Amino acid sequence: MSIDSSSVDSPTQAVVLVSCPDRPGIVARLAATLDEVGGNILDASQHTDRQGETFLQRVHVSWPSVNPEPEEVHAAMQELADQFQMDWRIHWGHAPRRVAVFVSREDHCLHDLLLLQRDGSLQCQISLIISNHPDLEQVADRFDIPFHHIEVAQSGDPESESRQLSLLKANDIDLVVLARYMRVLSPSFIERYPGQIINIHHSFLPAFAGGRPYHQAYEKGVKLIGATAHYATAELDAGPIIEQGVIRVSHKDSVKDMIRKGRDIERTVLARAVRWHLEDRVVIHAGRAVVFA
Amino acid sequence: MSIDSSSVDSPTQAVVLVSCPDRPGIVARLAATLDEVGGNILDASQHTDRQGETFLQRVHVSWPSVNPEPEEVHAAMQELADQFQMDWRIHWGHAPRRVAVFVSREDHCLHDLLLLQRDGSLQCQISLIISNHPDLEQVADRFDIPFHHIEVAQSGDPESESRQLSLLKANDIDLVVLARYMRVLSPSFIERYPGQIINIHHSFLPAFAGGRPYHQAYEKGVKLIGATAHYATAELDAGPIIEQGVIRVSHKDSVKDMIRKGRDIERTVLARAVRWHLEDRVVIHAGRAVVFA
Amino acid sequence: MSIDSSSVDSPTQAVVLVSCPDRPGIVARLAATLDEVGGNILDASQHTDRQGETFLQRVHVSWPSVNPEPEEVHAAMQELADQFQMDWRIHWGHAPRRVAVFVSREDHCLHDLLLLQRDGSLQCQISLIISNHPDLEQVADRFDIPFHHIEVAQSGDPESESRQLSLLKANDIDLVVLARYMRVLSPSFIERYPGQIINIHHSFLPAFAGGRPYHQAYEKGVKLIGATAHYATAELDAGPIIEQGVIRVSHKDSVKDMIRKGRDIERTVLARAVRWHLEDRVVIHAGRAVVFA
Amino acid sequence: MSIDSSSVDSPTQAVVLVSCPDRPGIVARLAATLDEVGGNILDASQHTDRQGETFLQRVHVSWPSVNPEPEEVHAAMQELADQFQMDWRIHWGHAPRRVAVFVSREDHCLHDLLLLQRDGSLQCQISLIISNHPDLEQVADRFDIPFHHIEVAQSGDPESESRQLSLLKANDIDLVVLARYMRVLSPSFIERYPGQIINIHHSFLPAFAGGRPYHQAYEKGVKLIGATAHYATAELDAGPIIEQGVIRVSHKDSVKDMIRKGRDIERTVLARAVRWHLEDRVVIHAGRAVVFA
Repeated sequence: MSIDSSSVDSPTQAVVLVSCPDRPGIVARLAATLDEVGGNILDASQHTDRQGETFLQRVHVSWPSVNPEPEEVHAAMQELADQFQMDWRIHWGHAPRRVAVFVSREDHCLHDLLLLQRDGSLQCQISLIISNHPDLEQVADRFDIPFHHIEVAQSGDPESESRQLSLLKANDIDLVVLARYMRVLSPSFIERYPGQIINIHHSFLPAFAGGRPYHQAYEKGVKLIGATAHYATAELDAGPIIEQGVIRVSHKDSVKDMIRKGRDIERTVLARAVRWHLEDRVVIHAGRAVVFA
Repeated sequence: MSIDSSSVDSPTQAVVLVSCPDRPGIVARLAATLDEVGGNILDASQHTDRQGETFLQRVHVSWPSVNPEPEEVHAAMQELADQFQMDWRIHWGHAPRRVAVFVSREDHCLHDLLLLQRDGSLQCQISLIISNHPDLEQVADRFDIPFHHIEVAQSGDPESESRQLSLLKANDIDLVVLARYMRVLSPSFIERYPGQIINIHHSFLPAFAGGRPYHQAYEKGVKLIGATAHYATAELDAGPIIEQGVIRVSHKDSVKDMIRKGRDIERTVLARAVRWHLEDRVVIHAGRAVVFA
Repeated sequence: MSIDSSSVDSPTQAVVLVSCPDRPGIVARLAATLDEVGGNILDASQHTDRQGETFLQRVHVSWPSVNPEPEEVHAAMQELADQFQMDWRIHWGHAPRRVAVFVSREDHCLHDLLLLQRDGSLQCQISLIISNHPDLEQVADRFDIPFHHIEVAQSGDPESESRQLSLLKANDIDLVVLARYMRVLSPSFIERYPGQIINIHHSFLPAFAGGRPYHQAYEKGVKLIGATAHYATAELDAGPIIEQGVIRVSHKDSVKDMIRKGRDIERTVLARAVRWHLEDRVVIHAGRAVVFA
Repeated sequence: MSIDSSSVDSPTQAVVLVSCPDRPGIVARLAATLDEVGGNILDASQHTDRQGETFLQRVHVSWPSVNPEPEEVHAAMQELADQFQMDWRIHWGHAPRRVAVFVSREDHCLHDLLLLQRDGSLQCQISLIISNHPDLEQVADRFDIPFHHIEVAQSGDPESESRQLSLLKANDIDLVVLARYMRVLSPSFIERYPGQIINIHHSFLPAFAGGRPYHQAYEKGVKLIGATAHYATAELDAGPIIEQGVIRVSHKDSVKDMIRKGRDIERTVLARAVRWHLEDRVVIHAGRAVVFA
């Protein structure tokens, strides 16, 4: 069953994510359930949280000999779920997610997402790009992605958000990526896409939350700067952290140098987080992101 | 079942390692087998090799409600193994491995192993220290570890190796750690401890195998130097790699500076490799080390 | 004299690089010479090689009050040089270098160079792109850079190289960047641009020189993969190393995964090396690259 | 003048640190001054701060042909200083600093400092160890360092601090290293040793200042943990940062795992900071540490 571990894009494959109160035998029972419906476990990762109360598992399943019958699989899973008080979801390989990318003026993160998607490293469809500035329309055009310029007078402006939300709905968007989008979304916007909005913050959170993190880092005289990809929540820059990275700086680096160096970290950290999300490797539990990388 | 993931030192716990030709259903069958003998799977990692021919799995099992009956467990595993042409081994938590550390004059790796073992980070018993120099006897004394000074006229000297092997046998040693031991063991010595001798080489292998790697690195003008922990095999510095690390250097660094900087990498890389081995996280397959870290 | 340390692009600034047999007083004498012609030292870095025989220095000079008179500066420097048997060169800030980028099919390194140049992080003019494949013409067009498709039947093919060299000459090229160009240039080509051709090799040299380094890395089971930016010399993949980087891999990573992960390292390592070259921070001495970063 | 760049321990060598309002010609004048008193510049690093108001330089000088006359050197420097409103200090190579190490119960940082000093990597004399617990006396004994157990009922207890200060004074201590000392020193203690107390904090400051940083990091779900070596100031964990390092963690890591992993970072970061301080590579300016590494 030789499978590229990062590839789940076949109709005969699926990723199952479960969480339930921990109790003995759960791994064996889930394995048996999937076996009974013809599924073969290619990869499984599990985690039991600190207090030992919650069991989480990600299972990558294939149907090597017969085509899966989704209804049958879902019914079997639901039966198990009822027994174990289990939350579960399944993501079939033939349904790439639909992604909207929000940007402002900087394009280094956007470029990376576009190139990675084109090269097959991000299993998704980038359906549209929304920006509060017109600057990056040309980039969108080059990759044939619809571009929408929606001015945002100030962060959380209801009318702008209403137009953004309409676009997301019309395009059936599963995931919003804030790729250096320099406006803060309102809590009510964010709550419509729980665990479905990924932001890149240009600091090593929780240090330097809020605005102008490189200026803060410069003032503080830190010796490493970082970037953090996290799910957006109502509280600014405080959502579950998916991935972080750092790069070395010194007193020689001006704020401008830090901004330049930081770009490499921002885009790689964001791209990794988006990829993990798309491959159903991330589970939010107790306010933190468990990443089955 | 909240368990420190790196702790397997209880009599009601075990780690099972299996490898077999890959075929559908194997994960479910192994889970069912362990379930039937009262075991609860705390953690499981698997890997299928590139050609899809071999399935490898590490399963950390506990017996939460009853004490395990090792004979029963072994019999059940063997039955499964016969069916799947499976190689398997089990390591019970109450049997810490017995380790011999070989050293020469440098003590930074030795110190780390001794301190980590003392702090409970290395689940083993360090039974003896063997050196071709008398220098480090004092260190051994401080930690109350028997120290044996065995001169080695030249690498592979049969008489010295015979004395070393007698000590290993008399002390029932499971693992030999070459902690900057500056002699090369003969192939016949190494073959008596297959996959049981871990060496730290002070370069980023396969670059700079053989002697004086920091001098080689200096001459070459590399910008990163490294260290590699690997299993010793008959071919020098070519055995399966368990762990590697690097640190940045520049033209400012003399060979002496590189040696100093390299020490930090050598000891942390070696300690990590030894820990993973002791926790049964390493499986050698097709000449490479699969590390279920 | 507050100056962005990475900015030398003003007509009243210059970078002076010197090398000479080491002897006492040289730093003071060079400082005095530049002072006498109105120059103010913004930044100076020096290095004396291991055997203590050669002194190397990079000095970043500005003329804060009067415009420099290049002839006067050059004459003063030459007088000093004669006295100290000094090799020296000066690069005035108003003369950005002219760069040719060679590519094949992969565009991740090319994209980075183009974006960085556009953002002002690479002080140069990218004058043309040469490729042995037509694929990336569209990328060149987007950035309005002339693109030349020159087929290369096999590495070192004299007719192709002759056409390439004509283009370099016609465009007055100062620096050739091999941005994942998959042909080997002939020694006679390379010798026409000594210390002026930067290549990115997709491994941590000297490990895995030659073809298919990620396949080699996979076979070997290394735990880190890397990239190396170096000056091209007649001997393949053996020229002075400017910069290196690594990223962690595991047994889970297929060759394809390594190729994907490696891209991030390749492009950042190459971009850093090119930037340092353009800022006159790299001096080749005794076969190694001294980088005054 | 081949010199190990990190070695300044000869009576014919010195490190000069200067800071003054920036103005053209200062580098040349300082070089000339040192030249006139027979000094040869082995290495010089300078930095001009952001606002361009302050010039900082570290100069490593040797007297290759004659023994230096300290009075003459000091007089020449003072004359220059008067002219340029310069703060300056000189540290002669034959005067290793006298260091006191404060510890509590954990010994990983202490061990590293002791081993590095013994190996010649830290140019100092470790004169005494002070602890609020008796546990590490045995370690001190092994290295023949006087050990003083001074109970500290609570952080800042005046009587305990008075005893500690007496010991520092009696031993003519130049540098205090807080090597995982778990008490907070009072502002009045700290103000007696401005820029002479180095602390290791077990987090990536400014994230997780204060107590139990690994617990905070665990709760927050960060993907990297760090350590920060900084000068102690009256404000807790807010002094100038000398060095920082990070290591990767995941949801698999318990707080206990983080503590274990963090130890490697803490000790290497602290050792590096102490070494740089001892080599006069650190200058505090405008609340930040400039490190001429």
